[in-house]
Amino acid sequence: MPDDYTPTPRTRVVREPHRGIYDRATAYQILDEGLICHVGFIIDGQPFVIPTGYGRKDDSLYIHGSAASRMLRNLDQGIAVCVTVTLLDGLVLARSIFNHSMNYRSVVVLGTAVAVNDPQEELDALRALSEHILPGRWADVRQPNERELKATLVMRLPIEEFSAKVRQGPPIDDEEDYGFPTWAGVIPLTLVPAEPAADPRLSVKMTVPQYARNYSRRRV
Amino acid sequence: MPDDYTPTPRTRVVREPHRGIYDRATAYQILDEGLICHVGFIIDGQPFVIPTGYGRKDDSLYIHGSAASRMLRNLDQGIAVCVTVTLLDGLVLARSIFNHSMNYRSVVVLGTAVAVNDPQEELDALRALSEHILPGRWADVRQPNERELKATLVMRLPIEEFSAKVRQGPPIDDEEDYGFPTWAGVIPLTLVPAEPAADPRLSVKMTVPQYARNYSRRRV
Repeated sequence: MPDDYTPTPRTRVVREPHRGIYDRATAYQILDEGLICHVGFIIDGQPFVIPTGYGRKDDSLYIHGSAASRMLRNLDQGIAVCVTVTLLDGLVLARSIFNHSMNYRSVVVLGTAVAVNDPQEELDALRALSEHILPGRWADVRQPNERELKATLVMRLPIEEFSAKVRQGPPIDDEEDYGFPTWAGVIPLTLVPAEPAADPRLSVKMTVPQYARNYSRRRV
Repeated sequence: MPDDYTPTPRTRVVREPHRGIYDRATAYQILDEGLICHVGFIIDGQPFVIPTGYGRKDDSLYIHGSAASRMLRNLDQGIAVCVTVTLLDGLVLARSIFNHSMNYRSVVVLGTAVAVNDPQEELDALRALSEHILPGRWADVRQPNERELKATLVMRLPIEEFSAKVRQGPPIDDEEDYGFPTWAGVIPLTLVPAEPAADPRLSVKMTVPQYARNYSRRRV
């Protein structure tokens, strides 16, 4: 697939069009830094938006859950979905209330999610999901057994119709407001990991593994 | 309205039902701590999920945007929406990959958003939105003028049909896995504000206001 693509009428950014980005590299960087997505789907004419973990492998997004979940049971029927990932980077304080904003990076993927039935692809997808959230963890834990794999439903959403939207930098005020006597700037926001907290039932005095001690979401 | 309410079939938490919470106090605490929501709506049978700021006033959620935005233009027609707010609190590392999870608090509100046409309610809603994100800022900036208010569309969503879902605490492993020799516990995650960065065009050497210097999302 080409790296750049022409947005469809459904994914073209209409508001603040200069913030729209349509190259895969940017979109994938945002997707790879995010931890949760918000999945939109429709049941009986009502939209639902549910947060869930996800992983990316090449040009596919994978989400998973219980084979009995209402959300995934519905996705399994091949209904249209929207998967949105949003990274909040800061509050933008302008001189006028009207020009206040947020710095953010977001990706919207539209399409139809299909159930993964091939056992090898399911295992690969679960590993991708795990490595997406915490690289190094998969090799360190008890692997899924037959029963657990059966209880898990993995869905694949091809990343075909998508767009990214990014706002960065200082506030943009109306020219006549720059003299207004108030502080203006950005309060940066970052999702920061704190000291890992051991499970009270951790029987042996184990050290926190490297991948959990130096955890960071920044993908550079 | 009663503080507790009986969930509808659409908002009753089906998966992990013990995580479902239906009292307003819990839901409002989550809504008041969140900075952005994800709004789900439908255009031509396709669900869209868009991140945006919001505010709460009593039993209403307010979202706003350009009067010309595709999203809000559609909401204006009275279509069904779903507004979801998610706070990510940590990664839960179990002994088995299957029991890995995340700690989170989320609220889902279903309903129909209506446009706010009364000028006083619109102004009150914009103040609520601003105070929600950064208490103290509203009084410190240039107020909205006639033209800006006209260019802004505010929508009200009554918080009537809703549910919250919360997962907290250490991993829950299968009993036979507790002996598995791997570290288990939680990596806590917090959205942390960094040092405010002044707008390069800030003409006078102004000090960062108190409300921006001690910014915290925790609502206690």
